[in-house]
Amino acid sequence: MQDLIVQKYGGSSVANVERIKRVASRIIETKEKGKKVVVVVSAMGDTTDDLIDLAQKINEHPPHREMDMLLATGEQVSISLLAMAIQAFGHDVVSLTGAQCGIVTSNVHKRARINDIHTHRIEKELADDKIVIVAGFQGINENKDITTLGRGGSDTSAVAVAAALKAELCEIYTDVDGVYTADPRIVEAASKIDEISYEEVLEMASTGAKVLHPRSVEMAEKFKVPLVVRSSYNYNEGTIIKEDVIMEKVLVRGVSLDENIAKISIFEVPDQPGIAFRLFSALAKANIHVDMIVQNVNRTAVNDISFTIDVDELQEAVSVAQKFAFEVNAQKVEYDQGVAKLSVIGTGIVANAEIASKFFEALFELGINIQTISTSEIKISCLIDKERGKEAMVHIHKKFDM
Amino acid sequence: MQDLIVQKYGGSSVANVERIKRVASRIIETKEKGKKVVVVVSAMGDTTDDLIDLAQKINEHPPHREMDMLLATGEQVSISLLAMAIQAFGHDVVSLTGAQCGIVTSNVHKRARINDIHTHRIEKELADDKIVIVAGFQGINENKDITTLGRGGSDTSAVAVAAALKAELCEIYTDVDGVYTADPRIVEAASKIDEISYEEVLEMASTGAKVLHPRSVEMAEKFKVPLVVRSSYNYNEGTIIKEDVIMEKVLVRGVSLDENIAKISIFEVPDQPGIAFRLFSALAKANIHVDMIVQNVNRTAVNDISFTIDVDELQEAVSVAQKFAFEVNAQKVEYDQGVAKLSVIGTGIVANAEIASKFFEALFELGINIQTISTSEIKISCLIDKERGKEAMVHIHKKFDM
Repeated sequence: MQDLIVQKYGGSSVANVERIKRVASRIIETKEKGKKVVVVVSAMGDTTDDLIDLAQKINEHPPHREMDMLLATGEQVSISLLAMAIQAFGHDVVSLTGAQCGIVTSNVHKRARINDIHTHRIEKELADDKIVIVAGFQGINENKDITTLGRGGSDTSAVAVAAALKAELCEIYTDVDGVYTADPRIVEAASKIDEISYEEVLEMASTGAKVLHPRSVEMAEKFKVPLVVRSSYNYNEGTIIKEDVIMEKVLVRGVSLDENIAKISIFEVPDQPGIAFRLFSALAKANIHVDMIVQNVNRTAVNDISFTIDVDELQEAVSVAQKFAFEVNAQKVEYDQGVAKLSVIGTGIVANAEIASKFFEALFELGINIQTISTSEIKISCLIDKERGKEAMVHIHKKFDM
Repeated sequence: MQDLIVQKYGGSSVANVERIKRVASRIIETKEKGKKVVVVVSAMGDTTDDLIDLAQKINEHPPHREMDMLLATGEQVSISLLAMAIQAFGHDVVSLTGAQCGIVTSNVHKRARINDIHTHRIEKELADDKIVIVAGFQGINENKDITTLGRGGSDTSAVAVAAALKAELCEIYTDVDGVYTADPRIVEAASKIDEISYEEVLEMASTGAKVLHPRSVEMAEKFKVPLVVRSSYNYNEGTIIKEDVIMEKVLVRGVSLDENIAKISIFEVPDQPGIAFRLFSALAKANIHVDMIVQNVNRTAVNDISFTIDVDELQEAVSVAQKFAFEVNAQKVEYDQGVAKLSVIGTGIVANAEIASKFFEALFELGINIQTISTSEIKISCLIDKERGKEAMVHIHKKFDM
């Protein structure tokens, strides 16, 4: 749809009455530039966490369907209040729940996937020249039960709506100015990136730079939705995320540090064909995402296998690993939360051997031991001691003149 | 549906975690007696008022559609929490919003009427042997917009669901033991009524005994749904409300006092044919319900017209009356909030002249002046000085040996 902008505001941008009013005027500015505007909103501030706490007091393991029913109220409150604020400024507006704007999801509760968006209601309201406010994070399944999309759900809602309506732009408003070369809280010299590709930002996000949830970027890439990440607190330009980014001279786009990981090691696993496959398929069945893997050949007939996972999945992963170790007669299972993954990201980075050696050299200069290395087309990652992660990040940022 | 009980719990019954758990076990007791159970719930405690306050801070005159969107979250929270509590006790349960259980209403927001209930979803869940928790107070209109039913909406939801499913009983759980012969906070000697007819309880409710909202009783009467009003805090029997109530010897069923009214008087209205009709049709057009009316013929060619209204509608009613007075050249408009309506209620009361005279005699004994009298088949009401209302109520309760 021509001249259509989709904007997404997160929970902190609508955390209280004053902020809701400010967001309302910001939305109106876009409308008054002659654009059609669809706005996707998260729940106010800590609402979702508060609702989870309340549920826990009633049922330690609340049924997922009922949890979604409960959590969906958070966005329903924020969309109606935001609509009231916009109407108070004299603009026509309508708020729509996930169900009302036809966001149809899979049947899985708490982490549903968007299957389809029936856009007729949104289109009708836009045709009536209204600003449309959509509840993020939620949808409806084929039984007409309310579902939620899990972490980063509102970003995903925004991109999905933008894709379905073929919006010219999807603006993600957040509390930072955009995507940075490194986390500015750690690396003082970090600078905002003006343009970055979907793939690069995906690697930034999956290695700890939590500006956008990977799911939303994957969807944006799939449907070629141009994204802008920018602050709702100022008028700075933000970071444009799109398919083809002019490479300039800079090859390394950013450096990121993921401290939210853990390493599990299984010692003295018999060296039999297919034994690693058996472990990793058991982990996959338990929905545990394994990231870096290393096998150390110790001596004849036994190997040590180590892998990293998201720290949230540690408990479950350890129990899968222990079951495996018992079955194959491995010696023991250990886990280590004292690790971090440091990565440099940039399109074509792997093709340039200089970058890898510069990266390793920087760690050597600090006397930091590299436990494991992994690479992709656009990323090189090293597993290192968590305690030295921030220091290493600052040094590498400087080393690459970012 | 055979063996189906509809239960309704008000906001105070689910005001906190402990009360929600208690209500959950009460619901389960009914289920374990072999009944099918549909439960209609209001929003927790003061949730609705809190949401209204929040909206006011954003927009002094919030659009009604958005207000309904906001308020409907209140029941959505309570149904999901109640379902979680029931599941924690090991019972199958599902919560449904007004939309999900097919409560189709008129298009008017904030005080919608229920037009239809598409019961297939509720029936399916009952067939699966689940306890069904329904959000009271809310529905959905033909545009799939969320509507709310206004005051007493959850009672109305419960009766409508009971009617649509042909339930054997609709139990209204509240914080009192049932319908009393008079407000026990005013008349210490007031006693609980075991059985009362729809019409009688309607008169009790509309004259100030706010146990049940009149709309819900009207609907129960229309569809012959047997009601029970009882406390959620104890196991007392409650009051049964049904069509044919055995009359016993007691003719006067109760006495009630409505202090929430005001009197408007228009002085020296020219005595022309149709002039009163003009006033009352203007009031009707403004949706103002006029209760007692009296015309005093002062002298030739001019009358004084007085009428009572709900005090909430005073401001609007006065402005309608003033416009009328100006147009017809009446002398002035005055209003008086110092009045109350005292009523005795009982089937066939008007046919028994003794009751009216005993009523008037009681007021005479206290030296209370009767400003206006109105009667219906089952009620006699007197407009008196508000300051003496409670005293009069106690005396009449005693005089009729209630």
